[in-house]
Amino acid sequence: MEILVVNPNTTRAMTDKIGRAAQAAAAPGTRVRATQPAMGPASIEGFYDEAFSVPGLLAEIAAGEAAGVAGHVIACFDDTGLDAARCLAAAPVVGIGEAAFHVAALLAHRFTVVTTLSRSIAAIEGNLVRYGLATRCARVRAAEVPVLALEDRDGDAIGRIATEIERARAEDRADAIVLGCAGMADLAGELSAAHGLPVIDGVAAAVVLVEGLARLGLRTAKSGPYAPPLPKAYAGMFAPFAPRAG
Amino acid sequence: MEILVVNPNTTRAMTDKIGRAAQAAAAPGTRVRATQPAMGPASIEGFYDEAFSVPGLLAEIAAGEAAGVAGHVIACFDDTGLDAARCLAAAPVVGIGEAAFHVAALLAHRFTVVTTLSRSIAAIEGNLVRYGLATRCARVRAAEVPVLALEDRDGDAIGRIATEIERARAEDRADAIVLGCAGMADLAGELSAAHGLPVIDGVAAAVVLVEGLARLGLRTAKSGPYAPPLPKAYAGMFAPFAPRAG
Amino acid sequence: MEILVVNPNTTRAMTDKIGRAAQAAAAPGTRVRATQPAMGPASIEGFYDEAFSVPGLLAEIAAGEAAGVAGHVIACFDDTGLDAARCLAAAPVVGIGEAAFHVAALLAHRFTVVTTLSRSIAAIEGNLVRYGLATRCARVRAAEVPVLALEDRDGDAIGRIATEIERARAEDRADAIVLGCAGMADLAGELSAAHGLPVIDGVAAAVVLVEGLARLGLRTAKSGPYAPPLPKAYAGMFAPFAPRAG
Amino acid sequence: MEILVVNPNTTRAMTDKIGRAAQAAAAPGTRVRATQPAMGPASIEGFYDEAFSVPGLLAEIAAGEAAGVAGHVIACFDDTGLDAARCLAAAPVVGIGEAAFHVAALLAHRFTVVTTLSRSIAAIEGNLVRYGLATRCARVRAAEVPVLALEDRDGDAIGRIATEIERARAEDRADAIVLGCAGMADLAGELSAAHGLPVIDGVAAAVVLVEGLARLGLRTAKSGPYAPPLPKAYAGMFAPFAPRAG
Amino acid sequence: MEILVVNPNTTRAMTDKIGRAAQAAAAPGTRVRATQPAMGPASIEGFYDEAFSVPGLLAEIAAGEAAGVAGHVIACFDDTGLDAARCLAAAPVVGIGEAAFHVAALLAHRFTVVTTLSRSIAAIEGNLVRYGLATRCARVRAAEVPVLALEDRDGDAIGRIATEIERARAEDRADAIVLGCAGMADLAGELSAAHGLPVIDGVAAAVVLVEGLARLGLRTAKSGPYAPPLPKAYAGMFAPFAPRAG
Amino acid sequence: MEILVVNPNTTRAMTDKIGRAAQAAAAPGTRVRATQPAMGPASIEGFYDEAFSVPGLLAEIAAGEAAGVAGHVIACFDDTGLDAARCLAAAPVVGIGEAAFHVAALLAHRFTVVTTLSRSIAAIEGNLVRYGLATRCARVRAAEVPVLALEDRDGDAIGRIATEIERARAEDRADAIVLGCAGMADLAGELSAAHGLPVIDGVAAAVVLVEGLARLGLRTAKSGPYAPPLPKAYAGMFAPFAPRAG
Repeated sequence: MEILVVNPNTTRAMTDKIGRAAQAAAAPGTRVRATQPAMGPASIEGFYDEAFSVPGLLAEIAAGEAAGVAGHVIACFDDTGLDAARCLAAAPVVGIGEAAFHVAALLAHRFTVVTTLSRSIAAIEGNLVRYGLATRCARVRAAEVPVLALEDRDGDAIGRIATEIERARAEDRADAIVLGCAGMADLAGELSAAHGLPVIDGVAAAVVLVEGLARLGLRTAKSGPYAPPLPKAYAGMFAPFAPRAG
Repeated sequence: MEILVVNPNTTRAMTDKIGRAAQAAAAPGTRVRATQPAMGPASIEGFYDEAFSVPGLLAEIAAGEAAGVAGHVIACFDDTGLDAARCLAAAPVVGIGEAAFHVAALLAHRFTVVTTLSRSIAAIEGNLVRYGLATRCARVRAAEVPVLALEDRDGDAIGRIATEIERARAEDRADAIVLGCAGMADLAGELSAAHGLPVIDGVAAAVVLVEGLARLGLRTAKSGPYAPPLPKAYAGMFAPFAPRAG
Repeated sequence: MEILVVNPNTTRAMTDKIGRAAQAAAAPGTRVRATQPAMGPASIEGFYDEAFSVPGLLAEIAAGEAAGVAGHVIACFDDTGLDAARCLAAAPVVGIGEAAFHVAALLAHRFTVVTTLSRSIAAIEGNLVRYGLATRCARVRAAEVPVLALEDRDGDAIGRIATEIERARAEDRADAIVLGCAGMADLAGELSAAHGLPVIDGVAAAVVLVEGLARLGLRTAKSGPYAPPLPKAYAGMFAPFAPRAG
Repeated sequence: MEILVVNPNTTRAMTDKIGRAAQAAAAPGTRVRATQPAMGPASIEGFYDEAFSVPGLLAEIAAGEAAGVAGHVIACFDDTGLDAARCLAAAPVVGIGEAAFHVAALLAHRFTVVTTLSRSIAAIEGNLVRYGLATRCARVRAAEVPVLALEDRDGDAIGRIATEIERARAEDRADAIVLGCAGMADLAGELSAAHGLPVIDGVAAAVVLVEGLARLGLRTAKSGPYAPPLPKAYAGMFAPFAPRAG
Repeated sequence: MEILVVNPNTTRAMTDKIGRAAQAAAAPGTRVRATQPAMGPASIEGFYDEAFSVPGLLAEIAAGEAAGVAGHVIACFDDTGLDAARCLAAAPVVGIGEAAFHVAALLAHRFTVVTTLSRSIAAIEGNLVRYGLATRCARVRAAEVPVLALEDRDGDAIGRIATEIERARAEDRADAIVLGCAGMADLAGELSAAHGLPVIDGVAAAVVLVEGLARLGLRTAKSGPYAPPLPKAYAGMFAPFAPRAG
Repeated sequence: MEILVVNPNTTRAMTDKIGRAAQAAAAPGTRVRATQPAMGPASIEGFYDEAFSVPGLLAEIAAGEAAGVAGHVIACFDDTGLDAARCLAAAPVVGIGEAAFHVAALLAHRFTVVTTLSRSIAAIEGNLVRYGLATRCARVRAAEVPVLALEDRDGDAIGRIATEIERARAEDRADAIVLGCAGMADLAGELSAAHGLPVIDGVAAAVVLVEGLARLGLRTAKSGPYAPPLPKAYAGMFAPFAPRAG
């Protein structure tokens, strides 16, 4: 089976890292196709960047759907554009944020999220409420590491993340950690070993979930709000990817 | 004072109707500037249309901000792009959905929303939860009237809406009605008189709220998730409207 | 238009300060009528004082209604007697607590309330839950300043409030502040400038909200729990202000 | 031990009925003192009547406290004035609404409340949320029987209540019923036998709860919002019952 | 009347202490029968111990029911096996955890629970959510005292509990304390006097509640999930105590 | 990899059906070991049956853990004994109820559960609240089919389930269905095809989830409430499976 993994920002190094993490998590026989939009921000740090990443992300989902992939992963921890992507796709679509929350809920009583910047906390908390899993999350913490600083292994990013993990144990009564950025996909194993509790990377979590859904033949529900977009005129520069009228 | 009212779809007749409703609600001395994006869908019916309306909407907000308007109204009942617009604007930004909910909460014990199509219910319910006002809403009902059918006064749109209002009284124990689409902005007075309970149009509600915020000199909070976007590279066709790095 | 602003306690200096703040917030052409009950406690600090302020407050609302005011403001942050006042009035009635919460929710992601005494926190938290806005409030803090000490500008009231505002930024992740007492109505501008985030006074907030409701012709919902009181015998010293049976 | 049971309305026949029900529920050796205020409405049907019943109710509580009663019961299903009474009393104070909810929660999975008039539903639902027990209540139903019509045994009051009980079984999946008015205190046994599920009267429930609290020597918490009222001037006709300054 | 009080662990000294506390709380004329299962763990510290204590506990409930007791108390703060016991018994069944929460809610605005070990916090928090009373609980704290260490009066158990009570006052804004283990049944009076706020022991609370229910003739609801178990084959070593098919 | 799938009741035909469904869902290379306890009820219908199934279930989990299985599935929709099993196991443990809820949440906006008997609704609703996913569930419906009647393909079980699925579409606004009993594991494909929306069987869902967790090397969190049981004496007939003190 082939799985599409879309990094919704336009930083190639991050797409490559995500692709490697996804392939490493995949079952034998699963091929991961890692892509990124042709347009949009270099990183997604807050609501504004999210808004501009979605149209390009949807173009990638549409291309994957046309190519017949078995499932889609949206590899931004904010689960950018997830609802719109589900309207577009018949195959299952899983965001790495929701994937990490669901996996953590199966292993632990309550988890803490460690994300990049404080400005992203509100979006993550909002998603937790929408998904229904807010009661399982002890706290969303920010390590105050910009997304692209995670690409610099000489910096102190991992030290800052480790500090927040220890605070989560001591102050939040958390028994698992969710890493709150696709750019942390390579750190989960190391941090889990160092801190002695499950540390969950959303990229790997989303890959195994979407593989499982696909293997069971389950597809996105189409009788509710994820019904295909209605045919209508789209003005200007955008070429939407939905079924069109006449 | 000047207030920008953005219809986030690209149907001129609807922008005009919204503009008239907004100007009628405004205080003497307030000038309403009603606009629509240069690009995007002709109507917003579900998550997919929302995603494609946001970049064009943000361009309008940016233009209004540059022109020094006292406040912004987003005239789609889904409050499309509201969080991103607040990152962009220093002036207050009010969505017509949230405006109607807040106003209803000041007049009534619990309200029912009557919107256009069932596929929009999920987004509205999600917003109610995010805003905190879900407990004040008895139910979100759909009259099953497409957005653009509201422009056709010969159709049975108003009859279908009236039917749902009566059901809301009888079945939902609602003591006020919120009209769930900007295209219903001209119906509130007529329906309130006919049914004998407050019927709230979000366009008018948003205008008086944003005028009030502006008159008090209140501006969007900038120390949290609505901080200005960080400067960064944006690839491809989009020209974002945020402060850029040197 | 004329707006009635009732200070539900019997301290004239506070009524005067509230009246000045309300008039300053009002639109040109709005006349504020600031009153206080003939009977009741000198300040409202807890549930017991609230109970004794309500009958006198309702007498003022009844007088305003008889005089044809366009709307009523209840100028105690506990929104004392709000539900009973809505039964009595056809014009809209807005409490300064709820007004401040609604306005804060339009400007910021989450707000902290800074009130006078710890004993008032429970009533404010209870109101937030009833209104549905508890999820938007990060925390209710007390500066431990008695209500009437706010009348003494030589004291350290403002210093104590400022301390709590700084704690709210650092500890609560609040991006706006709500001042939790009508007696703080003159401090919002100063504190907002000093701390660099929106600081909301409920008196001003309630005035612009009730003006907006009145301008739109919206009135209190009468088909639910705010229906006029049923005619019935009232024993003893009270002369209620409801429609009476023949 | 002596228990004060206050009927907060001024209808003597109802006070007598409540007193009989309370005495019947009390343990051997407990003496019930049933009283009513000297002033206030003949029945409590909605927020407005509640507001005017509280000062007289508090006078009765103060008198009971001075007489050294072991505990107080407020015999209106809205638990009128409960928080203020707790500020006034050192002995425990139990409202019949909360008593019935707590007892039902010990016997059944979820209960339905059957009250008098629709206009009272909002207050009861609000109390359930404040107490934390809203999730245990399947629904609050109104039999549309005015409070004082319960005094007329020739009417169809019991038939209307029975109809709602059967609906609660069939539609609400309720396995217990709470009778939502002090005036129904004499109906619980008959209705329980007829419908085959626990039917709970708040008067009896409150009596056994307050007896239990008193026997254990437990008293109202005084370190939080139920602290004694602060000494202060009270203007006009009210003579409050709090400790006074100098 | 006779009340069965089951200590679900198999430590005789704890059963004796619980029995003494229960008898001391009971009304004159109530006889307390304190028992423990023939099989199961010596103490209940977490989910695993709970699972093994339930079958023996149910045997005791069945024996009490057969003996015609007026009510049952489950004397483990986790309310181990409460739902299953309610299926088995027609008489009322009260757990000491729920009893303490309900009693605290009648005396105080919000309470803190002080339990034995951190590993028990999750079960207690889960119960609070199920019962609906989570909003009344400020925090569940662990004194980090093993259950059986409470039997050793020379240790520092009471000192550790006292420390958490002081923290609850200062940090949690709690105005009452619930002791979170049956083994603390003898400490409530001493701690309440020392700290000046209500300190509630669940054993005593459960006794007065179940006595009250029994005196009112109220019995467990049988039309919902507490219906008697269906007759069916039980394999292996267990002899269940439910009505059996012919 | 080997996965243990425990049917917690003692009906061999049901264990066989569950084993077939689990093996069919498993990835190539996964071996499913389907077992059942040596003791306990023939079916689990309510809280009482649950209580007696747990010790035998835990014996199976202990045996699987000792045999080094990669993960455990508890194949009763009530997720019987899940928390206790997590204390016992280092490998991941997934219940089929939670598995179905998590999978449904990834495919649909809101799902309805169709279970066997009304008496099981309360336990399922309680689990949804504990897991945090109650807001994603529109309703729990009972087809009123006893568990073992599902083994009789000549009966009308599937017809009754189909009726509830159609009601869920029409009345609950559900866009996916969760089958609420392990005994329905063979019906999901047929029902999904017939009704045109995702129909989720928990056995298959749990198998793909536990396989995914195992492939990622994730294990049950041991620093919180799922820590290994403390060593202690266990009286009587039970031989617990926890690490024992020297």
